[in-house]
Amino acid sequence: MRTLPEKAEEFRRLHHGTTPLVLPNAWDVPSARIFEDAGFPAIATSSAGLMVSLGYPDGQAMPKREFLAAIGRIAGRLSVPLSADVVAGFGRGPREVARTVGRVLDAGAIGINLEDLDPAREGLFPVAAQVRKLRAIRELGASRGVPLVINARTDALRHSPGEHAERLREAIRRATAYRDAGADCVYPMGLTDAASIETFVAALSCPVNVMVRKGLPSLAELGRLGVKRVSFGPAASYATMGLLRRVGAEILEHGAFDSLVEGAITFDELNALAVPRPPAA
Amino acid sequence: MRTLPEKAEEFRRLHHGTTPLVLPNAWDVPSARIFEDAGFPAIATSSAGLMVSLGYPDGQAMPKREFLAAIGRIAGRLSVPLSADVVAGFGRGPREVARTVGRVLDAGAIGINLEDLDPAREGLFPVAAQVRKLRAIRELGASRGVPLVINARTDALRHSPGEHAERLREAIRRATAYRDAGADCVYPMGLTDAASIETFVAALSCPVNVMVRKGLPSLAELGRLGVKRVSFGPAASYATMGLLRRVGAEILEHGAFDSLVEGAITFDELNALAVPRPPAA
Repeated sequence: MRTLPEKAEEFRRLHHGTTPLVLPNAWDVPSARIFEDAGFPAIATSSAGLMVSLGYPDGQAMPKREFLAAIGRIAGRLSVPLSADVVAGFGRGPREVARTVGRVLDAGAIGINLEDLDPAREGLFPVAAQVRKLRAIRELGASRGVPLVINARTDALRHSPGEHAERLREAIRRATAYRDAGADCVYPMGLTDAASIETFVAALSCPVNVMVRKGLPSLAELGRLGVKRVSFGPAASYATMGLLRRVGAEILEHGAFDSLVEGAITFDELNALAVPRPPAA
Repeated sequence: MRTLPEKAEEFRRLHHGTTPLVLPNAWDVPSARIFEDAGFPAIATSSAGLMVSLGYPDGQAMPKREFLAAIGRIAGRLSVPLSADVVAGFGRGPREVARTVGRVLDAGAIGINLEDLDPAREGLFPVAAQVRKLRAIRELGASRGVPLVINARTDALRHSPGEHAERLREAIRRATAYRDAGADCVYPMGLTDAASIETFVAALSCPVNVMVRKGLPSLAELGRLGVKRVSFGPAASYATMGLLRRVGAEILEHGAFDSLVEGAITFDELNALAVPRPPAA
């Protein structure tokens, strides 16, 4: 078993490869473990996926204690590094947010996503306030001896005023401040077109995360644009729920079970996902 | 909101229709809610699906407290009746098993599955011991005023000695005893071929549950054979994990995201699954 600092270092290295790190976001133990078995070198959680799976809408309606327990369950069954989406940090100020991140490290994760959208009012936090939180998290990591990977998300492209060009400038301004406060990677939510990605990456000179969605440039193209990390966001939850919806319609409308039994894994394969992967021989 | 007794009565009625009740087994809130939205009139849990999703192998390794919390989360977000697979009842004797079922009712479910395979030794419980548990559950329901639906599973087809015909006789003998002890429905695990299903149904004269699997007769044929309930077992978990495995292979081998973004639901649709369905207008 590697230590948390070793896992954090490994996760950081993955952000500096010649091709983008593809980071699948899971929401429970088997979704995380099946991605690990598929060969992904690190796993992240999706806040929407994880919270909805436990009966809470995305945001911070979920009690922090339940959230941390869920992160602990997943981290405890993974061998590869885990990054946790902590939304806005489950706290108001830098001290409270850093305390949340400390609990996330206790749970076994070595990376976090922190966003600058205030879930209470759907507006952006002031840059200075967000910077204080990021600095507090960086200091927390240093004091704990865990060089955790901070992915700083900005929602400026969706929630700041003006036209696209103006919003892009604001996203760059915010991401730059977050990088300078100690973020390892920045994540402009809603950045999807090649031209904007190129502009953003050129302005930042640090790893940039984009999220998979329909219409995003191909992985090869993203690599050429200088993107260093491509995450799923809640896409895998959307996809599996889409499958279950098709399963339901097929059975209720046609009495057929094909999409339920085709391409499925077995009982033993499912059961094996509940426990850590056996060490390679 | 209907009361537990009303939900239990409704669930019981669904076992006596002219076509089989198709009962999808879910494992968390959104898998249950998406099946409800698809139009299924009742939902069940899969023990393997639910337990693995929380990091425990199928069986009774999961702490009872966590198991009951998971049932409560799902029941609390459903409008239709929920049946819980309680494996062997999380207890040794009739009193302990009935206490578990009482907690399952407290959590909001109105049906249970109880199996006669001892998870501790992978052998069948004596019939008389299983009968005592079923009677205790029936009495618990009566004392609580909740006519819960008991689905008594027997694993005789897989775990009793002899050839298929001998095992089928043992499964019928056990299912008959369970029915007479108060089970509403019997569930011979591993019953899949039309001839055996026909024999079994004719011998029982009470609702019989079969589980979906590749090679099972069609739903229409199962209806002609007299089957009253067709459950998914862990099939939906197998199917979704199969999808995630394909997603992973497609991305890691081909750099493509098609199976991740095609046929998916949206963020708002996912988020809506965390809360009870709005009442019909």
